[in-house]
Amino acid sequence: MPWTALQTPLITLTTDFGLSDTYVGVMKGVILSISPQARLIDLTHDIAPQSIREAGARLDAAIDYFPSGAIHLVVVDPGVGSSRAACVVETDRALFVAPDNGVLTQPLSRRPMRRCVRLNEAAQRYLLQPISATFHGRDIFAPVAAHLANGLPLTMLGDVQTPEIEGYAPLVTLPPSAPRAEHDENGRPILRLHVLYADRFGNLVTDLTPEYWAQWWENSGVGAESDAIDAVEIVAGNRRWRGIARTFADVAPGEPLAYWGSGGALEIGVRDGNARRELGLGEILVIGCQLPVFH
Amino acid sequence: MPWTALQTPLITLTTDFGLSDTYVGVMKGVILSISPQARLIDLTHDIAPQSIREAGARLDAAIDYFPSGAIHLVVVDPGVGSSRAACVVETDRALFVAPDNGVLTQPLSRRPMRRCVRLNEAAQRYLLQPISATFHGRDIFAPVAAHLANGLPLTMLGDVQTPEIEGYAPLVTLPPSAPRAEHDENGRPILRLHVLYADRFGNLVTDLTPEYWAQWWENSGVGAESDAIDAVEIVAGNRRWRGIARTFADVAPGEPLAYWGSGGALEIGVRDGNARRELGLGEILVIGCQLPVFH
Amino acid sequence: MPWTALQTPLITLTTDFGLSDTYVGVMKGVILSISPQARLIDLTHDIAPQSIREAGARLDAAIDYFPSGAIHLVVVDPGVGSSRAACVVETDRALFVAPDNGVLTQPLSRRPMRRCVRLNEAAQRYLLQPISATFHGRDIFAPVAAHLANGLPLTMLGDVQTPEIEGYAPLVTLPPSAPRAEHDENGRPILRLHVLYADRFGNLVTDLTPEYWAQWWENSGVGAESDAIDAVEIVAGNRRWRGIARTFADVAPGEPLAYWGSGGALEIGVRDGNARRELGLGEILVIGCQLPVFH
Repeated sequence: MPWTALQTPLITLTTDFGLSDTYVGVMKGVILSISPQARLIDLTHDIAPQSIREAGARLDAAIDYFPSGAIHLVVVDPGVGSSRAACVVETDRALFVAPDNGVLTQPLSRRPMRRCVRLNEAAQRYLLQPISATFHGRDIFAPVAAHLANGLPLTMLGDVQTPEIEGYAPLVTLPPSAPRAEHDENGRPILRLHVLYADRFGNLVTDLTPEYWAQWWENSGVGAESDAIDAVEIVAGNRRWRGIARTFADVAPGEPLAYWGSGGALEIGVRDGNARRELGLGEILVIGCQLPVFH
Repeated sequence: MPWTALQTPLITLTTDFGLSDTYVGVMKGVILSISPQARLIDLTHDIAPQSIREAGARLDAAIDYFPSGAIHLVVVDPGVGSSRAACVVETDRALFVAPDNGVLTQPLSRRPMRRCVRLNEAAQRYLLQPISATFHGRDIFAPVAAHLANGLPLTMLGDVQTPEIEGYAPLVTLPPSAPRAEHDENGRPILRLHVLYADRFGNLVTDLTPEYWAQWWENSGVGAESDAIDAVEIVAGNRRWRGIARTFADVAPGEPLAYWGSGGALEIGVRDGNARRELGLGEILVIGCQLPVFH
Repeated sequence: MPWTALQTPLITLTTDFGLSDTYVGVMKGVILSISPQARLIDLTHDIAPQSIREAGARLDAAIDYFPSGAIHLVVVDPGVGSSRAACVVETDRALFVAPDNGVLTQPLSRRPMRRCVRLNEAAQRYLLQPISATFHGRDIFAPVAAHLANGLPLTMLGDVQTPEIEGYAPLVTLPPSAPRAEHDENGRPILRLHVLYADRFGNLVTDLTPEYWAQWWENSGVGAESDAIDAVEIVAGNRRWRGIARTFADVAPGEPLAYWGSGGALEIGVRDGNARRELGLGEILVIGCQLPVFH
C-alpha cells in the first residue's frame, strides 16, 4: 500500500539548529502558512552540528513510534548552498523530506524505499522565493513538507524514481556503521562496536543491533543465543566487565553495564554515573569468552 | 464532580529527559498514534535527573493554570525497570499518570485524591509490547495517558481505589519538605527553609508557603501579619537583610531579596544577579526579630 | 485591511524564560484555558535575559514567515512589577502583545502600526487575579493574547490610539541600532557595524541591512552596487578579509566570511568555526577600499 497523507497531517522535525535561535520557529511558521492544520512534533533539534550519521541513527530508532502517514522533515545539511539535491523519499509508512546527503541511509536500511524524487525546476513554484544560500530548511524543506501534508503528489516536485526502474540514480548513501567481527590473540571471537552518539544521560548508543548479534552467535557455532548472555566480556574505556544486563538496577551504583537500549541497539551506561565522561566515546569491545572457538 | 475528559484532550508532559534526545518526541509519537487529536504541552523536561521532589514541587506550582480535565503525564522514574508500580490518580480537576514513587506527594497534598489505580495485568493490552526495561515513558505512561485522553475508564487499568475504602493501599509518599520552626540563642523565633530548586535565573524556590507563614505568625503571638513584613531578618549564604520585598525593583542592583514567588512559595533572588551562584543552595533562615518573644 | 483573527488562532511566544522552568508551559496552560483551539508556536525562549534589543531584532527577522492574522506574544520584561504599561499593537498582518518597553521598536520600524492600546482598568477583567508582581507573562500577557485570539476587540482593553490622532502618546521606543558611516584616516569610507546577537553556531548578526547598504553605496558616488561586492575590506576581531561571500562553502575551512544572512542583515561567520568565540562581539568594520573617494 502506498503512503497516504493523514487527514490531520503530522510532521516531525529533526535538525541541528538548537532551540536558542528562531530557526525552528520560523520553519514552523512557514509550514503553518501553507498547511494550517498540520501537527508539528519536534523529534530533536540537538543533533551534533552537521552530524548526518547521528541524525540517521536517531531517526531510525524513533520514527516507528509515529503514526503511519507521518512526514519526517530532516534538516542536517552541511552542504547547504552547494549543489547537493533535496529529496523526498516514500516508504510504506512515511515520507521523508531531507537533503540528499546520506542522512536517510540508516532509516532506509530497514525500511525499503518505494519511491523517491529529487527536487527539480518543477518544484520551484512550491518553494519560498528567493531561496537563501544558508537556510534551505525555511525556503525549501519546510514548504515542501507542508505541500506534501496538503496532499501534493510527489510527481509535482520532479522525476519520480523507484529502485527498480532503468537508469535509477541512487540516493547518496553513507557507508553503514557496523561492528567489526574479529578474533583476538587468544583466538576468541570479538566484536568491535562504534559509539553512534551519547544521550543526555551520557549513555553510549552503539552500532550493535539485535540482528547482528544473533547472526554473530550463530556464525560462532554456538547454539542458543539465550545461553550466552553471560558469556561475553565487555571492555569500554578503562573498565571491563562480564555480561549484558537487563537494566541499571541490575548493577551496583558506579558500575558500568551494557544493555539493550530502548532504541534497539546495545548501549553502555554507568549506574548513577555518566558513561560518556567516565568511559569516553572510543571503540567498545565485546569478547565472546566462553564460545567454543576451537571446534 | 468527577474528572471528565476534555473534548479536545490536553496532556502535559513533565520529565527529566531533556530535549537533546528523541525521548520526548517519541513519547509524543506514541500518544498521537493512539489519540490523534490530543493537545500536548511541555511543562518541563529539565527536572534534575531523578529528582522526584523537584518534579512534585514544580507540578504543584503549575497545574492549576491548565484547564480542568487536563491529563498530567509525569516521568521522573529512578526505579524504571524495577517493581515500582505505575499509577493513575484522579483529582477534581485533573488526571495524573506517573510512577508510584512519591512524585505526586506535593501536588496531592493540596488537591485531594478522588480515586487511583495501580496498573495491573488488565492494563497490559493498552501498553506498547514488548515493554522495554529502560523506557516506560514510551511503553507504559505515554500509551496509558493517550487511552485515558480517548476516554478509557480507570477501571480498565486495574483495581480502582479510593482513600475511604477498606484495605486501601496508599500511594508511595515522600516525607514533605517543610520549614523547621525553632528559636535562636536569643530566644527569637526562627524558621529554617529548604531550597526545593533554583530556576533558570538562579532564583531559589523555598518550601515556605503562605499558609505556613500565616500560621507561624499566629503561633508567635503577634497580631496582624501585615504589620510584620519588615519585622524579619533573612540569612542566605553570607548575606543578611531585612524584610520581604514585593519585587526585584524594590532593592538595589546586586542586593539580595526575599519575595513571594509566582508559584506561591517564598523565593530568594539577587537583583541583576544569580542567587544560586551567589548564595548557594543551603538552608535559608528567617528570623522574627521584632516578635514579642518575651510575652 | 485591518488585522483579522485566524479561524484557528495562532500565537507565537518569545521570551527570555528558557525552557528549564515551567514558566512557558504555564503560560500555555493559561492560553489554552481561555482559547482551547489556539495553535502555539515557540519562536524562542532563549533571548538573553532582559535583552529587549535582541528580542526585537529576532522578531523582526522571523515574523513575516507566519501567517497573516498571527498574534505575537513577547515577554522580555525587565520592568515587571514596575509601572511600565502593557500594550497591544496592530499592524496589517499581526497583533503584538508585549510590555511597552521598546521591544517592538525594530519590528515596527518596518511594519507600520495601525492601532495600539495600553491596558487600563478596562482590561482587568481579562487578567488573572490577583496579578503577581513577578510573572506578568502568566497573569497579563498570556490571557490578553488568548482573549484576542478569541476575537476580543482591542477597544475592550483600553483607549485605542492611532498615530494620527491628536494627543497620541507614542509607545516607548529604543534608539535604533544602525551602522555608523565615517571615513578613515586615508579618506576611505567605512561603516561601523554592531553585533545584535550571535546565533547557536556563533554567527554574528549585525545591524547592517540591505537597504542601508544600498544607500551607502549610492551616497558614496559609485555606480552599480553589484560591481562593488569585492570592493570592501572587512575587519572583525583580529581578522581582516576582502569581500562578501554568498555562503560558507565560498571560503576555506577556518576562514572568516561576511554574508547576507537568512534574516536579512549582514552576518559574520567562520567556516567550520565559531565567530563569536574567534572574533568576539565587538564592532565590525566595513571599509570601502576601492571607492572613488577623491571624486
